[in-house]
Amino acid sequence: MRLAELSERSGVSTATIKYYLREGLLPPGRQVNATTAEYDEEHLRRLRLVRAMIQVGRVPVATVREVLGHVDDDSLGRTIRLGAALWALPQVSEPDTEDEFVQAAHRETEELLDTLGWSNAKLLTTISPAYRSLVVAVAAFRRLGYDWDSELLVSYARLMHQAAVLDLDFVERHTSEAEKIETALLGAILTEPMLQALHRLAQEEESARRYGFE
Amino acid sequence: MRLAELSERSGVSTATIKYYLREGLLPPGRQVNATTAEYDEEHLRRLRLVRAMIQVGRVPVATVREVLGHVDDDSLGRTIRLGAALWALPQVSEPDTEDEFVQAAHRETEELLDTLGWSNAKLLTTISPAYRSLVVAVAAFRRLGYDWDSELLVSYARLMHQAAVLDLDFVERHTSEAEKIETALLGAILTEPMLQALHRLAQEEESARRYGFE
Repeated sequence: MRLAELSERSGVSTATIKYYLREGLLPPGRQVNATTAEYDEEHLRRLRLVRAMIQVGRVPVATVREVLGHVDDDSLGRTIRLGAALWALPQVSEPDTEDEFVQAAHRETEELLDTLGWSNAKLLTTISPAYRSLVVAVAAFRRLGYDWDSELLVSYARLMHQAAVLDLDFVERHTSEAEKIETALLGAILTEPMLQALHRLAQEEESARRYGFE
Repeated sequence: MRLAELSERSGVSTATIKYYLREGLLPPGRQVNATTAEYDEEHLRRLRLVRAMIQVGRVPVATVREVLGHVDDDSLGRTIRLGAALWALPQVSEPDTEDEFVQAAHRETEELLDTLGWSNAKLLTTISPAYRSLVVAVAAFRRLGYDWDSELLVSYARLMHQAAVLDLDFVERHTSEAEKIETALLGAILTEPMLQALHRLAQEEESARRYGFE
């Protein structure tokens, strides 16, 4: 397809597509003559991914380039390739290792992984930003004097594991390896705001069921 | 307790506590003499809530004041009081009502609520920011040409409803009405980053189970 059709089908303006091409976020089309290039379904797919990262995920252009480098590195296995792509995305705050609450949260989080039997996640604790984010979240609860039992955390974790199974089942429907990696990344960017909105809506529903609107 | 003890027990510096008092985020203590005031457990609880909003939720001071106004307005029922408090928090982007994907997402989201039997949430669609956030998220999926069946959305929604039941069960453990409202609000601010981290960690675990680390 020509640039105009790529723009039409993706909903991205031709000026923006040209910018992405210049920035190397989109591979060049096949040159048919001096002024015309031809694009294919792969360009369309990549364009959607770039757009989701920039417009929905608000990821800076330099980071998008880095993430795509991991997505395209087929020398890596799927778990690591996806991990490297996700880990390159902007992260929340890092834990302060000197802080006593953070140290306690590390121990609590490692115990949680044992209880859950998440032995693979446990192998990744030194490199996974998700693990560090969880430590920060647990430390915040503890620092505020929140006193809950660890069973509650286990229950939340099991629910989120069910969500992860749905995510990966959806990814598996795609045939090519490149599509699988891209769908997983796109899913991570799009699914998080959706789950957050569903969670808040579910709180409203459940609250109204229990207490009504009075 | 005196200011020094309040600072000690909350982990918030005396200078910051004085600032919160000046800004009206914390009610004044009971004045014992010209230079000394006495604080109680309610001050400590309120201080934790303010700190969570400002430090963890990164909520601006003016917004914190507005949210606390709703928390303290006991002329409202619990669902509305909590809703008003949560709704005053900073929200993600608003849907563009002119956009055709947004219009389609409205219809799809209303159908979802029907399928789920969330009749209370459906009564709130015109005022709930959570509903609008969900519409934005669904529209983003559709605009990117994501073609999934609505059953997947139903499955995610049921998981998040289970999370909401856990949230509210936790809130119910507190005896006083004021504590219930505060815990619900604090929980919303702290639970979201925790669920997000658990979700990402679960994706790593599930991915490694399916594909290993190669």
